[in-house]
Amino acid sequence: MTRYEPKSSLHSPRFCGIRTFMRLPHVETFDGVDFAVVGIPWDDAVSHRSGARMAPEGIRRISVMLRPWNPAQNVKVFDHLSGVDYGDVDIVPGYIEDTYRRIEAAFEPLARAGVVPIAMGGDHSVTVAELRALARVHGPLAVVHIDAHVDTLDLHFGKKYTHGTPFRRVVEEGLVRPERSVQVGIRGPNYGPGDYEGSRRLGYDLITMYEIEEIGLNAVLRRIRARVGDAPVFVSLDIDAVDPAYAPATGTPEVGGFTGREILALVRGLRGLDLRGADVVEVIPALDPAEITAYLAANLMYELITLLALRRTEAGAGA
Amino acid sequence: MTRYEPKSSLHSPRFCGIRTFMRLPHVETFDGVDFAVVGIPWDDAVSHRSGARMAPEGIRRISVMLRPWNPAQNVKVFDHLSGVDYGDVDIVPGYIEDTYRRIEAAFEPLARAGVVPIAMGGDHSVTVAELRALARVHGPLAVVHIDAHVDTLDLHFGKKYTHGTPFRRVVEEGLVRPERSVQVGIRGPNYGPGDYEGSRRLGYDLITMYEIEEIGLNAVLRRIRARVGDAPVFVSLDIDAVDPAYAPATGTPEVGGFTGREILALVRGLRGLDLRGADVVEVIPALDPAEITAYLAANLMYELITLLALRRTEAGAGA
Amino acid sequence: MTRYEPKSSLHSPRFCGIRTFMRLPHVETFDGVDFAVVGIPWDDAVSHRSGARMAPEGIRRISVMLRPWNPAQNVKVFDHLSGVDYGDVDIVPGYIEDTYRRIEAAFEPLARAGVVPIAMGGDHSVTVAELRALARVHGPLAVVHIDAHVDTLDLHFGKKYTHGTPFRRVVEEGLVRPERSVQVGIRGPNYGPGDYEGSRRLGYDLITMYEIEEIGLNAVLRRIRARVGDAPVFVSLDIDAVDPAYAPATGTPEVGGFTGREILALVRGLRGLDLRGADVVEVIPALDPAEITAYLAANLMYELITLLALRRTEAGAGA
Amino acid sequence: MTRYEPKSSLHSPRFCGIRTFMRLPHVETFDGVDFAVVGIPWDDAVSHRSGARMAPEGIRRISVMLRPWNPAQNVKVFDHLSGVDYGDVDIVPGYIEDTYRRIEAAFEPLARAGVVPIAMGGDHSVTVAELRALARVHGPLAVVHIDAHVDTLDLHFGKKYTHGTPFRRVVEEGLVRPERSVQVGIRGPNYGPGDYEGSRRLGYDLITMYEIEEIGLNAVLRRIRARVGDAPVFVSLDIDAVDPAYAPATGTPEVGGFTGREILALVRGLRGLDLRGADVVEVIPALDPAEITAYLAANLMYELITLLALRRTEAGAGA
Amino acid sequence: MTRYEPKSSLHSPRFCGIRTFMRLPHVETFDGVDFAVVGIPWDDAVSHRSGARMAPEGIRRISVMLRPWNPAQNVKVFDHLSGVDYGDVDIVPGYIEDTYRRIEAAFEPLARAGVVPIAMGGDHSVTVAELRALARVHGPLAVVHIDAHVDTLDLHFGKKYTHGTPFRRVVEEGLVRPERSVQVGIRGPNYGPGDYEGSRRLGYDLITMYEIEEIGLNAVLRRIRARVGDAPVFVSLDIDAVDPAYAPATGTPEVGGFTGREILALVRGLRGLDLRGADVVEVIPALDPAEITAYLAANLMYELITLLALRRTEAGAGA
Amino acid sequence: MTRYEPKSSLHSPRFCGIRTFMRLPHVETFDGVDFAVVGIPWDDAVSHRSGARMAPEGIRRISVMLRPWNPAQNVKVFDHLSGVDYGDVDIVPGYIEDTYRRIEAAFEPLARAGVVPIAMGGDHSVTVAELRALARVHGPLAVVHIDAHVDTLDLHFGKKYTHGTPFRRVVEEGLVRPERSVQVGIRGPNYGPGDYEGSRRLGYDLITMYEIEEIGLNAVLRRIRARVGDAPVFVSLDIDAVDPAYAPATGTPEVGGFTGREILALVRGLRGLDLRGADVVEVIPALDPAEITAYLAANLMYELITLLALRRTEAGAGA
Repeated sequence: MTRYEPKSSLHSPRFCGIRTFMRLPHVETFDGVDFAVVGIPWDDAVSHRSGARMAPEGIRRISVMLRPWNPAQNVKVFDHLSGVDYGDVDIVPGYIEDTYRRIEAAFEPLARAGVVPIAMGGDHSVTVAELRALARVHGPLAVVHIDAHVDTLDLHFGKKYTHGTPFRRVVEEGLVRPERSVQVGIRGPNYGPGDYEGSRRLGYDLITMYEIEEIGLNAVLRRIRARVGDAPVFVSLDIDAVDPAYAPATGTPEVGGFTGREILALVRGLRGLDLRGADVVEVIPALDPAEITAYLAANLMYELITLLALRRTEAGAGA
Repeated sequence: MTRYEPKSSLHSPRFCGIRTFMRLPHVETFDGVDFAVVGIPWDDAVSHRSGARMAPEGIRRISVMLRPWNPAQNVKVFDHLSGVDYGDVDIVPGYIEDTYRRIEAAFEPLARAGVVPIAMGGDHSVTVAELRALARVHGPLAVVHIDAHVDTLDLHFGKKYTHGTPFRRVVEEGLVRPERSVQVGIRGPNYGPGDYEGSRRLGYDLITMYEIEEIGLNAVLRRIRARVGDAPVFVSLDIDAVDPAYAPATGTPEVGGFTGREILALVRGLRGLDLRGADVVEVIPALDPAEITAYLAANLMYELITLLALRRTEAGAGA
Repeated sequence: MTRYEPKSSLHSPRFCGIRTFMRLPHVETFDGVDFAVVGIPWDDAVSHRSGARMAPEGIRRISVMLRPWNPAQNVKVFDHLSGVDYGDVDIVPGYIEDTYRRIEAAFEPLARAGVVPIAMGGDHSVTVAELRALARVHGPLAVVHIDAHVDTLDLHFGKKYTHGTPFRRVVEEGLVRPERSVQVGIRGPNYGPGDYEGSRRLGYDLITMYEIEEIGLNAVLRRIRARVGDAPVFVSLDIDAVDPAYAPATGTPEVGGFTGREILALVRGLRGLDLRGADVVEVIPALDPAEITAYLAANLMYELITLLALRRTEAGAGA
Repeated sequence: MTRYEPKSSLHSPRFCGIRTFMRLPHVETFDGVDFAVVGIPWDDAVSHRSGARMAPEGIRRISVMLRPWNPAQNVKVFDHLSGVDYGDVDIVPGYIEDTYRRIEAAFEPLARAGVVPIAMGGDHSVTVAELRALARVHGPLAVVHIDAHVDTLDLHFGKKYTHGTPFRRVVEEGLVRPERSVQVGIRGPNYGPGDYEGSRRLGYDLITMYEIEEIGLNAVLRRIRARVGDAPVFVSLDIDAVDPAYAPATGTPEVGGFTGREILALVRGLRGLDLRGADVVEVIPALDPAEITAYLAANLMYELITLLALRRTEAGAGA
Repeated sequence: MTRYEPKSSLHSPRFCGIRTFMRLPHVETFDGVDFAVVGIPWDDAVSHRSGARMAPEGIRRISVMLRPWNPAQNVKVFDHLSGVDYGDVDIVPGYIEDTYRRIEAAFEPLARAGVVPIAMGGDHSVTVAELRALARVHGPLAVVHIDAHVDTLDLHFGKKYTHGTPFRRVVEEGLVRPERSVQVGIRGPNYGPGDYEGSRRLGYDLITMYEIEEIGLNAVLRRIRARVGDAPVFVSLDIDAVDPAYAPATGTPEVGGFTGREILALVRGLRGLDLRGADVVEVIPALDPAEITAYLAANLMYELITLLALRRTEAGAGA
Repeated sequence: MTRYEPKSSLHSPRFCGIRTFMRLPHVETFDGVDFAVVGIPWDDAVSHRSGARMAPEGIRRISVMLRPWNPAQNVKVFDHLSGVDYGDVDIVPGYIEDTYRRIEAAFEPLARAGVVPIAMGGDHSVTVAELRALARVHGPLAVVHIDAHVDTLDLHFGKKYTHGTPFRRVVEEGLVRPERSVQVGIRGPNYGPGDYEGSRRLGYDLITMYEIEEIGLNAVLRRIRARVGDAPVFVSLDIDAVDPAYAPATGTPEVGGFTGREILALVRGLRGLDLRGADVVEVIPALDPAEITAYLAANLMYELITLLALRRTEAGAGA
């Protein structure tokens, strides 16, 4: 069976060639594929700066810097995995519900074929559609939601679907298991204490940045792992969880966020979870002159892919 | 009756103070108001780069450079007019039809009160809603549509309302009189000759940039004036009508467009028409490091306002 | 009595409307006003990059992201306070002493009316004029001066008033009580040890960044609170106190500064002081493509305003 | 036989998907292919600003704006042609002669298979290698060299191969027929009259910008067509031929160049020539915040491709 | 006697070495010097965007592109001239009158030594001080003032010295001969017809851009040459005379200005005048990502220097 | 004997004058010179983004912010040292081996004269040539190599000299003493464990960022000092050792690097070593809109120079 891995930059310079994620083959097949990177260039549902529709392009562009050995986890990712760049979902500009249907149509077959989707938003509203597709296959999932914002408004501008509401919708639609789920990194000015209480009432464990500063990242990781347990899990990472110094290019930044090393440690610390899908959202390349936000996003996707490789190793080791 | 005019920059430096269009008072009244600048920060319906939602803010920011005497037309605009910055329409992110209703609700009372709206997009899809409001008051209008693109697709991404379809919709809805209307500046790669024929079949006089280069701007102006005649008219100016050198900050640029002096001459040449409303659309401040696109847009709005002042003078002179 | 609070972004998207600080009403009244945000767009007195004159505009632009509940301090700010955006002082380009007179004329009536001014520079030379006005009303003030630089030169380029001299002038003019005042965050290459000694001789407690790295922020906060005590206090925050990674857009950056979380903790830690005024200075929007510096500045202003709200709560609670 | 044409942007938004030139299939085949777009990301041989190695990526990114009907020439390009994005040549950073070998190895088989290469530099030194490959197949070619600079130095920094020398080398190596060739658009400060005389002594017809301003573009086109005649021809277009207002993002700009409309007219005016290959070089995306240079470059490539389509039509019409 | 000329870029790449104007020696001597480039980094007196203090640095940086033969005028400049980069005047931030004294002190000895100063602003207020120095040596001068704005306000913000007043001050102080002087390129919104009448009452011949569009550049040049005659002349060129497409990086842009080719032709057309000094002002490098404004400014300085060389040739030829 | 020190910015504003490093005299002499800043504008050998050829210019531009007293080390640098800006090496674009010869020719006489070179790259390939020159004079040196990448590939793109291979070459050529040398800060995706093992097999002590996070900076410093001992040492600092938040403007960034305060502490902690030369490489000004990368690089050079001053003090104190 064909195995898919990145083109090496040792002989072919990485700045040569069509830009795909990490120089992976752009193939629209499920055959022999363990994970697929998928772009969702939708940015209509945002409450401030738009431009995240260009994130898949921007992340691909700088992701050619990535290489197959992850020294932080000491694993050669493609010794264990075969992966592709599946391209983008054709979204429908200005029509969120049509766009949701397109995303669902793209993700459900991937999930059915056992391919783990690693998605690049787009704005955070896309997670609803991804989870609809995945829950149809895997049942309700645990979610590790890493973000500055709870995104659990009921109505936003009088509407149910925006980038401020997805994590309420996915509970209401029965797509996630809130008792197995956490929201991490939450902070910043909001409308009132009800914003946080709303999340907790939905069943999430909400871990604010203020609490993280007190208890430390290791405690947070223990709490996440205890809560998620062996449930199939989806990781949804809004780049604005990270401090604007490290991730300036996003639509609704919040000061006082994770440093680069912290967010990397957080994702690496999810090692062992039963990852069924993930997304990294809200990158705006037009605000990223040196591509540092897109490159951090690409690395976080790489760390998520690494988790899959590690799980294979450990599964193999356990066998 | 109160008259509204800009704050002078002779004593108060123009970089001091809250940014309104041209330093006009920000007043939400119709009383004693001849024209009102209105922002429509909607950019969801675009086929390439987003970001025009920030255009009203970006245009206001540099519009403080404008001053009350227009030497090209030799008129002191506020000797004849009273005008305000009416603020923005509260759009609904991700929902074009709700947004249309909000725009209509804002524009209809303005029109009824005899206030001429000078709108700043947003993307070009907003014109449908503006014309709905105006046509309810004034009946169907002539339109001078200045643009690189015909914007008369039927369906775009399978949808009726996007920034590629408004000038078909406004004919279908009976809001414009195509036999009194023109499309000017059209050019650039397209799907096929049917794109232009579609416009002509709707009844527009389509004047391509290629034809303008041959016959010259004066002939074009004669043709426009003959066609529009004394019909009440709406001018809709997509900044991508202008060459990217002069207006780089737009979502779907086309090379080979008007120079700055040409587009100014084109708008000035509309002197005498019975202007009932106008919009300037598709400016994206995030792509405009030196604000030259926003400043050209602000000047074109100023020239449109000047047309109103001139009409008053001439009407007065004629009385 | 009218109370002034920000427009909610829950229904009206924050990118809609005239930009005022935090979407506060732009009102030039003292009636029923607890605090007033005031811009001072002066940048002539700087020793390197100019452009801070656009800071009030740039900070207002991104400050629309702020919302009324501060979770770090757990207070709904506008349950306790009424505040406005008072607009900008009309400065006099090229003439610092005339500009000082304009600033004094704007600030003194505010102070007399019991309105706490939260100013946005401009460059740091403006603090002299603010303190002249405030000291006339409140008598000499304690100052918490957060900065990379001491700003206590005697003559700079042979002149008494530049952005390198204000904290000497305010002592000489008897506007501050140096024995109640501190300079925090000082660091970076300088002319000689005399630069620091000069500050100490003026009576300031000077806490360098090097010392802060050793003793930690909590010790610093205890020292500040002990020194200031219950004196009426002015907080003057030069954004270059913050590391260039977090605040790149300033004229005279210094490496090795506060992180975003540290500077937020520093300001939050001033809780309980008797704040009579504050300024945040030296932001240059033209160097801030993703607006991260302006947004940090806006948040620091928000934390300063929050201190006022907390003091009200505590005062109320104590009653 | 398979025919290759761009994906339509009418249903799939152009900002969705892996970026290839004009959304053409990325296929490495010659079968059924009339033209192939090829990137050459080499920028080491430049005399001022580097960064043109990213041009193929940057041009692809914005080229998704292009559509299949060229209204200026009134031809549906893909009714007559099948084309692909062939990807990039793997260059060898820091080693120009190795890089030349790689380019030759890529281009010769294309030419042998009758595929017309439309190349994207890279810096102008790459043309030598392209012409080596093409001349091996087609014999010496006429060249239409559109540029601000003659690029006919003998030694540059003591070396034979830099971006200042290619049009001397190609004559010396017998790759071009100078008596059939022209250099157009030449201007700007230089070392001495010998710079121009050198070109003329090599046999080129050198048409300066100063002469073009006098005699007009139509005369220039007549002169080019008369000189080239029916010889097989290569068009080499350095984007710095265009004025910096229209093409700011290049390494060695010269003021006083072609406008966008002029350069488009110049390329369109080559209609009828027997085009065997072309390149557009010296675009630097890092200097192109609104992508206007890259988009003009993409359009010029599109016009060159259109020339091929027209030749097919006319040939067909003549049959 | 030592002759000073630029370092050649044929062997030493132009991007190597300390940046001086055109790679001229940085020498503070008058001996054997025909012209001296002098920077005046003052930008405090501006009415909108600041940042022109960095213009000398920015212009020097890109001026290394210039080479010694001017093909438009067909002269090898340094066959006839010896020139240096004299460095910058040490201005006094925030104090315009002190700064004037420094400029005068720098320029008067240059003029006395027969060295022609070619100055780089800074903002336009610096011209007053330059002309004070030159008039002391040469008597009152004719001025060719190329600008979008008349700069003949009496008081600006209540002050006599700003960038809006210099061309009134120089007449009042008897430094220029208005009957021999012109203002060219004037346009754009202003306060009222009095703005232009004021200039004419001072004695200037005012040629608006609108008039230039009608009568053409050749007629303008004839009018300038007739008016100036054989008077010693100073050319003062505000870069905002040029259209924002060609010169975006300036503080108070005006749409509808000169193209690059027009402004070059205008300066070249001054051939034969008795040039005693010149300045190019109001460039803001922070707004110039591709350095096109600074490069046009550098070329205009080069054309001014070329005029000196031509005058030598012709004088020599006449001998 | 002449002593060379920076121009003071207390009277002459730092934004006035030709830009040299730290406003040091630009003198090409060895006489009375302790250290010389030298630029090496070479960027051809890079594996991703080019543009580091402009680093010497960009670092000089912002380095004018530096002042002579280093408070972190409490030393007035120029009480102990005399230093100059020696200008740049004339590199040969496109020819790495010729460029190496030019670098060697420039550095060897400096080293022979006892002048310590503080170099600014260019890309990291330049270090080979610097060490060739220094080793000829001082014998093999210890190296403290601070970088995200090991740079010890054997062949890169089939070639021996690129920016991925220098630290293998310098061992092979006998220029360094690997048993006295360390590589610090190494991290990020790579080809495989062999990348790190290769370095260790060459004899380097490799300290990854992951290890540094565990053991802390003080332990690292002890390890470095123990290893280097009293060997003559060269410090080679690739700016990508620093986190992209602090140093965005580099060609091959890696997330998870040093903060600004950490990298400063690391360099300051080298106090006491016998420093014979240093370089700071891989800064790309075109990606650095607020100059924060260049300013950090300038500060790191300043800290390296400070080490020389401290060594003099201590040597003196010891005498």
